Order: sequence, then structure tokens, then C-alpha cells
Amino acid sequence: MIIVREVAQLRQAIAERRQFGADGAKAEQGSAAIRPHTVGFVPTMGYLHEGHASLMQKAREMADTVVLSIFVNPIQFGPNEDLDSYPRDEARDLEVARREGVDIVFLPTVAEMYPQPTRTKIRVSALTDRLCGASRPGHFDGVTTVVAKLFNMVGPDLAFFGMKDAQQVAVLQQMVTDLNMNVTIVPCPIVREADGLALSSRNVYLSAEQREQALVLSQSLRKVREVSEDDVQNTFTIRQLYQMVETTITSSPLADIDYIEILTFPSLEPLLPEQRLSDVEEDIIVALAVKFGNTRLIDNIRIQKGEVLLHV
Amino acid sequence: MIIVREVAQLRQAIAERRQFGADGAKAEQGSAAIRPHTVGFVPTMGYLHEGHASLMQKAREMADTVVLSIFVNPIQFGPNEDLDSYPRDEARDLEVARREGVDIVFLPTVAEMYPQPTRTKIRVSALTDRLCGASRPGHFDGVTTVVAKLFNMVGPDLAFFGMKDAQQVAVLQQMVTDLNMNVTIVPCPIVREADGLALSSRNVYLSAEQREQALVLSQSLRKVREVSEDDVQNTFTIRQLYQMVETTITSSPLADIDYIEILTFPSLEPLLPEQRLSDVEEDIIVALAVKFGNTRLIDNIRIQKGEVLLHV
Repeated sequence: MIIVREVAQLRQAIAERRQFGADGAKAEQGSAAIRPHTVGFVPTMGYLHEGHASLMQKAREMADTVVLSIFVNPIQFGPNEDLDSYPRDEARDLEVARREGVDIVFLPTVAEMYPQPTRTKIRVSALTDRLCGASRPGHFDGVTTVVAKLFNMVGPDLAFFGMKDAQQVAVLQQMVTDLNMNVTIVPCPIVREADGLALSSRNVYLSAEQREQALVLSQSLRKVREVSEDDVQNTFTIRQLYQMVETTITSSPLADIDYIEILTFPSLEPLLPEQRLSDVEEDIIVALAVKFGNTRLIDNIRIQKGEVLLHV
Repeated sequence: MIIVREVAQLRQAIAERRQFGADGAKAEQGSAAIRPHTVGFVPTMGYLHEGHASLMQKAREMADTVVLSIFVNPIQFGPNEDLDSYPRDEARDLEVARREGVDIVFLPTVAEMYPQPTRTKIRVSALTDRLCGASRPGHFDGVTTVVAKLFNMVGPDLAFFGMKDAQQVAVLQQMVTDLNMNVTIVPCPIVREADGLALSSRNVYLSAEQREQALVLSQSLRKVREVSEDDVQNTFTIRQLYQMVETTITSSPLADIDYIEILTFPSLEPLLPEQRLSDVEEDIIVALAVKFGNTRLIDNIRIQKGEVLLHV
């Protein structure tokens, strides 16, 4: 596993693997029919957990070279957010990367990523004014800008993102489509603890009591799953779905709801309260952001209409 | 010369030239020491003149494959600008491209470039609020967004832009640097008619009388050049330089000044009126936008401090 901290080293390491292949021997270039070497990319902010590991596994499965980046990106944090306290553990992260068979780890400093403060920002409109975009103004501009920078450094064929940040997946897919970026976004399923809590680097902030009560998030989403599967006619309305989720979450006295939203996915358009589940043709996402103390947790479930139809 | 109208064809044509080289034979891939095939890109809005031809010549000189794009980009025009009347002549453009040895011409429709209206925009701040950015709000967001899209389609090593749009060069260089795009911007000198008028596709709009009076632009800039070369101590102040230019331009009764600005280049920072030419350490640009009837012409001169020093 190669560890690089500078953009120039990163470009060179990837160019070498593209040219000479994974085993360092000169790749067969004799025929146009030979499948070209592919690069899979997993961008992260580190403090890696099994959710990240699942992205690396998917990348390992689909690509010849796997590149992992670890960078806590200052421009996606608001002034009152947890940039300074965001958890970091480089040694353990490198262990996880090694275990998952990552080829190249990119660990840049802030100065390497932003030698000058960036004057250029990429902004995706509409998709970013709701959900986390509403409570974290500028957050997604920071995400799209840094991901575009990383894409330009790595030049990946495939890029892997967890569906836990479903809005991030939708926003990045929109950016890639709109800007004709030559990369395929591969969304990967949410990974959960045995008791249902979605994995997050921020879970370490939770007290034992908060950790216990935070289970209302996944519990409420499991009920959504059951309704969408069991209710064969899908007579449930969006309003009923909302109320069911809200009732479950407010059963926790520590839960401070930031938002509960039910939207189409990936277009993130709002649905009417009286609309029935069965009348929505697009996929639906139920997305939550709930604070426990100072820790803001997010979770979501995607109701895939193809999937629902199988049960009708 | 290959003419393509779809992004997929464009990508394929370029990939083939990268893989098999300019002559269609399989490129030598045996050694890492062999210089890789380079792609030079000239993005234009068509109605090609000798200014564009000079970009193609430079690209032909520097790159193995030369790609020309012709696309009148709607999102860089304001609502009251000349999008609909912007001059077009595809047959003649293709003749020019052929004459200059272009390999691939990309001629997309608006639907091919924007299958849906783009929700993603790239914005370069600071550099875009002055000069043409002040009188054309949103113009540069349209330019940076379409150029990023074209870069992502072509994947050029080198991209060629005329210094006539000096602000465009500065803005694009900022975007490339900030977003770590793997392309080198090559600025090329302004090409002029024998009498000094800077070539522009919009010159065809000028009446004979306007055309005659439009010479005040280049005349005023020639005086700037003379002062910067002759005044060995450069005791001239920015204010004096400004007044000299203004006096020359207002000698034309038809000239309607949009702006005369004297800024650093490429950072486009304003200079103080009492500052002496000799005290400025960066390059200086004197940039003009002047309307003759409905036709807005731009021109500029760059005082390269290295160059000036040679004359001290």
C-alpha cells in the first residue's frame, strides 16, 4: 500500500498503475480489446468504520486500483460546526485501509489541498436547499468543490459513496451529470450496528444514554420499510408515514428533531401530504436529522418503487 | 478531419487517437520514456477569424491531436444580449479548421450540451465582479461552467485561449488552479487587422463609420505601449495612463465607454491612481470595453513587468 501526501505523488502513483498495471509489470497494450485498467476511488474524512470499509470492499471488487483519500475538508464545515473536534485517528485508518486491500492512500494537508483559499466554488442548486442543505448553508458547495478537486487529482473511473449521506449522493450525481465528468458514482448501502444504529464517525460523541435513545432513528425507518412492504395496496399517505416516523422519534425524550422529510429520490422533490405511497412513481426517500445533545445524527431509507412493486 | 456532434463520439475519437496515435497505427507503448500523446484543445463560439486560426496554429505546434469545439453557449449570454443574432457560418468554420490542420471538430447542439438545464454552476469569485463581469452579470459563471464541461469531455493536456478576452484567461486559470484540473492554459496574443482593430466575430456588426472610429481602441492601447516602453523611469501614474486612454477614446464621437480599467494581471486587482507604473511589481493590464451603436467591443494590452524592465 502506497501512502502519499502530495498531489504530484498521487498523480504519479496512479499514472504508474494505469500504465504498468497492478503488479508493476508492463500491462499488455497489444490489443484494443483488452479491458483497460480501472481506478476506483473512495473519498472519506477518515476515522474509518465498517461503513467506509464496505465502500473499499465494493471498490476492491469492481476496480483494478483502489484509491482512498482521507481529508477533513474545512470548507464544508460551517463556522459553528465541529471542524476542530472532528475525530481523527490516522494510524487506525491506515490499518483499516491495509486490511481492505487499498492500493493508494492519499492523506493531504489543508495547505496541499488549498495552497490559497479557493476562489472557485461548484454549486448545485435546488437539490441543496433542503434537508441538510437547509440547516448547513454552504455545506454542499464545500462538498462538491472538494470532490471535484479530488476527482481531478485521481481521475477515477468509479467513485464510491455511502447512501447514509443520501443527499450527498444525489448532489454529486447531479454534478457529475451536469459537468460531464467521466466517472460513475456507485452508491453503497448504509451499514448498521447489530441494534440498527447507522455507522457514523460522529457516533463516538454519544453518551451511553444518547446512544441508547438514538435507536429511535433506525426503528422509525424500519417501520417505514415494513409499511412499504406489507401494505400491499400502499394506501398509506405521505402524511401518515410522516406521523408514524415522528411519533417513534419523539418517544425519545433526548431527541431534538432537525428535520423529517419525505422526498422523491434522487430529484429530492417534496411530496404532497395526501399523496398515497402507491401513487408516487419515483423512488421515495425518508430522511432524518436528529440531534442528541450536540451530536447531530442522520439516517434515511429509500423506498425503491421497483422493489415495492414486487410485493404488490 | 473528423467532425462529431455527440459527446460519446467525441470521447471515442479522442480515446482512439490517444491509444493509436495520430497516424492510426498502434502507438509504441513499450517504454515509459516515450513521450505520451498530447491533446490540444481550442474551444470557440465559431464564426472563426484569424484570431481563432492563431490558436489552432499554436495548438498544432504544441500538441499531437488538435480538437476544436464550436458552440454558442446560451448560459453565458444575458437576457438582453446577442445570443440569437450571434453570427454563425458552419461551412466556412470547417474550411478554416481544415486549413489549420485540426484533427477533430466538435459541433454539439444545445440539447447535446444541456440535455436538462444545468443545476450545477462553477463560480469564480472576486475576479469576475469587475471588467466585463460588472456589466455582464452571470456571464463568467456560464463561461467557467461550459469550459469545465468541455474539458471533461475532451480531457485536453493543453487549452488555448486568446488574450483578447484577458479576463476570461485570468478566470479560467483561477478555476484550473483551484479545482486542480489537469490541463495547462496557454494564453495566445491578440491578433489585429492591419489598421490595428482587434479581430472579433462581433466586428461584422459594425457600420463603415463605426468600424473607422473603433480604431481609437487600439490607438489608445498603442500609446500605452509607447509610454510603458519609452518612459524609461516610468514616472507615469495610473491616473495619467487612464486619462491618456480616455482622451483618445472620447475623440471618437460614436464611442460609448463601458469601462476603462487598469488592473494587475492575472489577479485583476485595482491600482491606486497616484501609483507610478514603475512601482507596480505585477504585470499590468489596461482593459477597455466600448460600445459603437449596439456593438460592444473589447480590447486590452498587458504591460509585462519583465518586458518593461528590459527597457530600463
